[in-house]
Amino acid sequence: MSRFWSPLVHTLKPYVAGEQPVLDDLVKLNTNENPYGPSDRVIAAIRAQATDGLRLYPDPTSSRLRATIAARNGVEANQVFVGNGSDEVLAHTFQALLKHDQVLLFPDITYSFYPVYCGLYGIEYREVPLTAEMRIDITDYRQPCGAIIFPNPNAPTGCPLTRQSIAELAHDHPDQVVVIDEAYVDFGAESAIPLVANFPNLLVIQTFSKSRSLAGLRVGFAIGQRPLIEALERVKDSFNSYPLDRLAQAGAIAAYEDDDWFEETRRRVIGSRDRLTLSLRNLGFEILPSAANFLFVRHPVHGGAVLAGGLRERSVIVRHFPKERIKDYLRISIGTDAQCDRLVDALRALLS
Amino acid sequence: MSRFWSPLVHTLKPYVAGEQPVLDDLVKLNTNENPYGPSDRVIAAIRAQATDGLRLYPDPTSSRLRATIAARNGVEANQVFVGNGSDEVLAHTFQALLKHDQVLLFPDITYSFYPVYCGLYGIEYREVPLTAEMRIDITDYRQPCGAIIFPNPNAPTGCPLTRQSIAELAHDHPDQVVVIDEAYVDFGAESAIPLVANFPNLLVIQTFSKSRSLAGLRVGFAIGQRPLIEALERVKDSFNSYPLDRLAQAGAIAAYEDDDWFEETRRRVIGSRDRLTLSLRNLGFEILPSAANFLFVRHPVHGGAVLAGGLRERSVIVRHFPKERIKDYLRISIGTDAQCDRLVDALRALLS
Repeated sequence: MSRFWSPLVHTLKPYVAGEQPVLDDLVKLNTNENPYGPSDRVIAAIRAQATDGLRLYPDPTSSRLRATIAARNGVEANQVFVGNGSDEVLAHTFQALLKHDQVLLFPDITYSFYPVYCGLYGIEYREVPLTAEMRIDITDYRQPCGAIIFPNPNAPTGCPLTRQSIAELAHDHPDQVVVIDEAYVDFGAESAIPLVANFPNLLVIQTFSKSRSLAGLRVGFAIGQRPLIEALERVKDSFNSYPLDRLAQAGAIAAYEDDDWFEETRRRVIGSRDRLTLSLRNLGFEILPSAANFLFVRHPVHGGAVLAGGLRERSVIVRHFPKERIKDYLRISIGTDAQCDRLVDALRALLS
Repeated sequence: MSRFWSPLVHTLKPYVAGEQPVLDDLVKLNTNENPYGPSDRVIAAIRAQATDGLRLYPDPTSSRLRATIAARNGVEANQVFVGNGSDEVLAHTFQALLKHDQVLLFPDITYSFYPVYCGLYGIEYREVPLTAEMRIDITDYRQPCGAIIFPNPNAPTGCPLTRQSIAELAHDHPDQVVVIDEAYVDFGAESAIPLVANFPNLLVIQTFSKSRSLAGLRVGFAIGQRPLIEALERVKDSFNSYPLDRLAQAGAIAAYEDDDWFEETRRRVIGSRDRLTLSLRNLGFEILPSAANFLFVRHPVHGGAVLAGGLRERSVIVRHFPKERIKDYLRISIGTDAQCDRLVDALRALLS
């Protein structure tokens, strides 16, 4: 607390990211990173930009990157907005599109940054409880509201909705913005991007941090019709003209063009997820059906905090959320098969 | 305009950055970039980070970079805040520290992003006119206010204040935050960083975009006492956990450690500035005394817009601001001597 702070600062409850420990021989399954790095094409593209040219500002509009994303999604480049990670895209979205006279709706169990953004921008919100089965039921959103946001698949549950459900939701709320946060969509859910042409109220957000193996590069994007994208551009150009550096733009273009690596690595992650699901089930865990690169699991006997602590002592880090409704769960990122095996071995030892 | 926009968006007047044209053989003297690129050490450090490790999130607190900056400035690492360019640092500063019941003060002629930030965060401000000689007079700031910000040297004038003047200003306003934006300080002005220990109300902001030759990498920082830095951290952690990617952190560390290159290149820029000053004076220009890597000049006969247009036809781009008090001026970034010579040749042709 300080007399120098703007009054808002006293009220903020900042987001707590999953830790980024630097420890050898750690099995790090806590922040949903891809166990496979970016392809050689991406590395080469970045190195080719690491030149004297870094003295110059980057393209403030990231035009080549936006064109690359647009071409592969059947939209125009001016329907694509890019930012410094999808967290920045989300921040601008909250400020530009989700603050209205009526409340913003999102699930009670979801990405825990959403209420933080609401605090930052003074947005009133109402949490809509997941069903008893921990699913989003779109009929629960049939209530007066200013806008709606949730991830699909949802986090940290991993449970997906169909594209048809998203279309119904957007159709139910023609005067409200509906934001679908597709950070994990490439691991098994249906993207809502094909719906953008039909729904002027629909904004879809994706990231390069998961399926594109570039958490370390900070690139995310949104796709929507022009009025929604224009709102994001207006906020961005009132905040920071150059959010993506030259290396990030080059690396992201190469990653988005590398279909083979994308397909190969997401196939591997999905395979490891299925394998890990079986192993954990054999240990007695209940597992929510996941379309993401993580599993959300609980043991009928052992609590989440105890298990997370025990795993940590065995150099395996997973994420535990100290929130009442999900305190018995662990969120486990999908690693390589070898990493998953170390997790299973550690759990087996803990449970025995 | 769209019914989907948050009400704020309708009111925004975004910042317009200097253009980043892609044209061969262009003499680009419009955005104050360094004519010399980063050193080989910086390139090597970036390439060494362009690996498989990009699959992992960066250090959210940029701890090594902050320690590097701290060590060379005689402060603690927790007195350093870093962001995605000093524009992001400024944005967080406006939101975290410059919004109070009383107005924010800044010069009438200054960095044109300041009123844009005020619009984004709903901050009331009052412009304090520069003197007739286009200088900041700190006694003009002796009036009721919530906070004060200006660049030193000021932009786009290039005129510096002494460290002693900054100390007097901070002393005059013990209950107000005073932010000194030192984007250009390394080209000939005195930094206020040594004053931070004595003034809990003083925040100093610098950038890697100018004297560190890394406009393309997007890194800026602030130095202040803990309560000011904590306010920035709280806003940052409510906005984007990971603003600096792995490559930017590595490149910035290497650049900040490379004293020889820093000294060599800023010496060259200062030499070219002095040389260009003489050449322009010979052409009849009035030139404000600059401690920055640009000159702010006007011709007694020819208007700024006409000259800027004529230069553009000759493939030389400078910055002209269509604002009443400075509409006769050009802001000319210092290039290499060869680039400056092409500018002078083009101007000579225009004036003849």
